Amino acid sequence: MSRARGRRTGSPDTRAAVLTGARDLFAQRGYAGTTIRAVAQRAGVDPALVHHYFGSKDRLFLAAMEVPVDPRDLLAPMVRRGPRGAGRRLVETFLAVWDDPQTQPALVALARRALEPGGDRLLRDGFLPAVIEPVVTELGVDRPAERTGVLASQVLGLVLARYVLRVEPVASWPTGQVAATYAPLFQRCLTGPLP
Amino acid sequence: MSRARGRRTGSPDTRAAVLTGARDLFAQRGYAGTTIRAVAQRAGVDPALVHHYFGSKDRLFLAAMEVPVDPRDLLAPMVRRGPRGAGRRLVETFLAVWDDPQTQPALVALARRALEPGGDRLLRDGFLPAVIEPVVTELGVDRPAERTGVLASQVLGLVLARYVLRVEPVASWPTGQVAATYAPLFQRCLTGPLP
Repeated sequence: MSRARGRRTGSPDTRAAVLTGARDLFAQRGYAGTTIRAVAQRAGVDPALVHHYFGSKDRLFLAAMEVPVDPRDLLAPMVRRGPRGAGRRLVETFLAVWDDPQTQPALVALARRALEPGGDRLLRDGFLPAVIEPVVTELGVDRPAERTGVLASQVLGLVLARYVLRVEPVASWPTGQVAATYAPLFQRCLTGPLP
Repeated sequence: MSRARGRRTGSPDTRAAVLTGARDLFAQRGYAGTTIRAVAQRAGVDPALVHHYFGSKDRLFLAAMEVPVDPRDLLAPMVRRGPRGAGRRLVETFLAVWDDPQTQPALVALARRALEPGGDRLLRDGFLPAVIEPVVTELGVDRPAERTGVLASQVLGLVLARYVLRVEPVASWPTGQVAATYAPLFQRCLTGPLP
């Protein structure tokens, strides 16, 4: 029956199609709003095949979120050059990953998951300790805990406005305009005066 | 049976208890994650009574979200004093409502709803035209569309960090420290240089 309808059967291509479909759906509908059935339909495969490959929605989500970039590798060079101009380098590093069509769907899906009730662990165990805290700490600026909090709110606001809620004109700006607009705001969080 | 278990029956107090329970649950679990049954349980009433009063989850949500403040009334005095110091006055006006325990649960619930897939209409039809755009427009600053977008991302980042995801130390700062930290960031969005 599957064959008669032209559905894909198991192969590396099928697995890739399922993961692409999952990334797109998780990004559009969030974790709670995505079902294995809908992912299978999007990928043109039988739901049983998705179960066979991934077992559960949670494991499918984890597999689909495997972004082939390690934030620490990306951030290390920008940190090494010190606090001056770090705001600009940080927002450019951020945009190089988020504006890349290869990595954007998984990142938007991760952001949507973090925003769902109970998703705050992604932030507390992922985004903060893996991305924001190392940048602030390794730059050696004063009052790192406070700067981490304010910088996190900057990055969260940019993620929401540009990628998740798509607030115009920020959502449609070319990469360079976002970088130029947010660099001074990021820099202020990293090295500006605090009350 | 309801009486035997000590459940409340219909009265203005019951209606108020249902609305309070609804606000708390919508704030904690989001719109999708909240059921009429759970709201009834929290309020100690029969689910049939909640259906009787409000008809549907959507109408219960709307009734629970009736915040007794009109943002335009709050923002008008701060706008009248002009662009200088407007960042400080804006963040103080924002915090007067969001840090108030009377209004905070409904606002957090609204924010959670706006963050769910499909909730972006709340932003597009509510937050942006009722709050951010009038402030920027009536202040008479240059390039209002661009400033609206960047200011929206500031406010969204602050809402997420302080109230929804509770990023420390921002979530626990006293009101005055939040005002002093974010005033220069808001001011930069309103009157600072743009690329």
